[in-house]
Amino acid sequence: MKNISILGSTGSIGTQTLDVVRSNKEKFNVLGLSANSNIELLEKQINEFHPIAVAVMDEQKALELKERIQNTNTEVLYGLDGLNTIATLSDVDLVVTSVVGMIGLIPTIKAIRCKKNIALANKETLVTAGEIVMREAQKNGVLILPVDSEHSAIFQSLMGYTLQDIRRILLTASGGPFRGWKKDALKDVTVAEALKHPKWNMGKKISIDSATLMNKGLEVIEAKWLFDLSLEQIDVVVHPESIIHSMVEYKDSSVIAQMGYPDMRVPIQFALTYPKRIANSYEKLNLFDIATLTFEKPDLNTFPCLKLAYDALRIGGSFPTVLNAANEVLVELFINEKISFYDIPKGIELALEKHDIEHDLDIDKIVEIDCWARNFAKNIFL
Amino acid sequence: MKNISILGSTGSIGTQTLDVVRSNKEKFNVLGLSANSNIELLEKQINEFHPIAVAVMDEQKALELKERIQNTNTEVLYGLDGLNTIATLSDVDLVVTSVVGMIGLIPTIKAIRCKKNIALANKETLVTAGEIVMREAQKNGVLILPVDSEHSAIFQSLMGYTLQDIRRILLTASGGPFRGWKKDALKDVTVAEALKHPKWNMGKKISIDSATLMNKGLEVIEAKWLFDLSLEQIDVVVHPESIIHSMVEYKDSSVIAQMGYPDMRVPIQFALTYPKRIANSYEKLNLFDIATLTFEKPDLNTFPCLKLAYDALRIGGSFPTVLNAANEVLVELFINEKISFYDIPKGIELALEKHDIEHDLDIDKIVEIDCWARNFAKNIFL
Repeated sequence: MKNISILGSTGSIGTQTLDVVRSNKEKFNVLGLSANSNIELLEKQINEFHPIAVAVMDEQKALELKERIQNTNTEVLYGLDGLNTIATLSDVDLVVTSVVGMIGLIPTIKAIRCKKNIALANKETLVTAGEIVMREAQKNGVLILPVDSEHSAIFQSLMGYTLQDIRRILLTASGGPFRGWKKDALKDVTVAEALKHPKWNMGKKISIDSATLMNKGLEVIEAKWLFDLSLEQIDVVVHPESIIHSMVEYKDSSVIAQMGYPDMRVPIQFALTYPKRIANSYEKLNLFDIATLTFEKPDLNTFPCLKLAYDALRIGGSFPTVLNAANEVLVELFINEKISFYDIPKGIELALEKHDIEHDLDIDKIVEIDCWARNFAKNIFL
Repeated sequence: MKNISILGSTGSIGTQTLDVVRSNKEKFNVLGLSANSNIELLEKQINEFHPIAVAVMDEQKALELKERIQNTNTEVLYGLDGLNTIATLSDVDLVVTSVVGMIGLIPTIKAIRCKKNIALANKETLVTAGEIVMREAQKNGVLILPVDSEHSAIFQSLMGYTLQDIRRILLTASGGPFRGWKKDALKDVTVAEALKHPKWNMGKKISIDSATLMNKGLEVIEAKWLFDLSLEQIDVVVHPESIIHSMVEYKDSSVIAQMGYPDMRVPIQFALTYPKRIANSYEKLNLFDIATLTFEKPDLNTFPCLKLAYDALRIGGSFPTVLNAANEVLVELFINEKISFYDIPKGIELALEKHDIEHDLDIDKIVEIDCWARNFAKNIFL
């Protein structure tokens, strides 16, 4: 029996994690859940999974939830402190970090320090503080199990081998809803158009990141830390069918790939059951139906966010933190129709230009730089 | 330093194995070589690799070779006894069995009994006596390392997992030179047309087997024994680009594939260096150049040999032995222009119909059944 906490249980990854748990109740026990504000769904989850504690970000919402679940034994916490408590509950073996954005960083670090293995679905954590997170994980003998389909694919393709055997990895990208579009046509796209991902049904933030290709940029940075690679070892391949989820090229020229239909429950389940695999009834890959898989180069001119991510990683230090923070703010402004599509990369570029690089980062410094970049980005287009 | 013997060192796999050894002289030491009749090439190999012994099938050729290499310390043996000696030299760690056809069986068994690991490129060995070979390997604690690109792909895709995790395997097939042709058009194809494989440059026997799809049928049977699978767990996918060399679908719906350009040196090297991978300078996979990978169902009506192989495996017992023996004889008759393309499956079908199935096989019984099937096949079209 594995005891788990899920940070962000009402989001896309959180609910799919609970789908996996639901199908394997004899294997997993949910001890903690957290949500931002969706207490209706959280209430249902409490009644189904009986966690010992839950956390809600907003205090008012937490009080409301407390009222509703009076007849249960579940404790209701709130705020960042509540999130941290859920991440560090004493009997928890594995913490699924599926909150969105930089907010996942502190609870992830706290969970690692309490020797919890991490199923990492919060890529911003590694983008903003990859070196620190991986160092803490190593120091505490903790596994960081990737949930992102691409990183899970790399992780699965690495089973039985060591990182020293890698020549490079090939991260696949669907290309997003605007693959093949040119810059002029993209200038005035609407939020609704950008949210329509062709292959994956995901949350808003990651859907916009997919439309700008920043999502792939964040994944490049995430992969760098997760697999201890140099920038030159990470290539991006646009693969619109999203069947090959990523590949590892070994030094002997052999390439191992992980494939399947786009279904996040597969990587989620693997992170939960690692190193074992367990049977499920998800759709079986039918290559006769698919018939064709295609590959093309990413268009860095139309999608400058991917180039910016590579640049930030190349320069290093605090640059990825600034990239990530500015992107979070600008994506939210775009979703709220305050700025246009290309204001996102423009704003990130301005933030990076304005920022004085810092090295030897610790968590406090990262939080500080993150704040600066957020404030800066918020005010660019006022 | 690994000491190796190569059975069939002047053939396609044999020479490529020596290519791998040539690039890694500090890792491998060639103790034994064998050839059918090409003593010119064998002489060159002796002068380059200084084996302690070599074997040639024909006694006269062996004497001729002995004359030529007087100034070396290499002993020259001949016949099946010679081949067996090369397979069991006392300091050898790994025997590469790259002879073609049923003749590989006895030396392989002898090598296994002398506790040599086997790099198996001779698929007929497993087709005709898979159960016995795998049982002997297990009894003697010996590794059977596949060299066939498809089986190596499965083997590589299985690293880190167990056979119990497999839902099924997907063996890829290029489709051969006649992919897309219909039966009528194929009736009168010439040997030269059949030998022109679109993707792999191989020996004559395997090239014809690829044209009839019997090669894939033999691989299905080989995979059954190598990975202890049921027939229902082995699917064949035609994939003309030959980039994905085969796949494993796990019970959790995740598919792991091994990919690369068609270059036999990659699987050969992996069999030699297993469980390690070592660097080489073979061509790096460029998916942008390839751009498209396609998949289709095998056409069992146009290529009845694949269906016959499935049938023989389903019935079991001595049927695969008969299938393999009849196929060897009929392919040779086709190469010598004595029979037509569709006489190959027709002859195999007649042999299978005529054969009274036997169970509880041992090597003597297999040799006997093999002889019967050869004689039968030889006389069908007289």
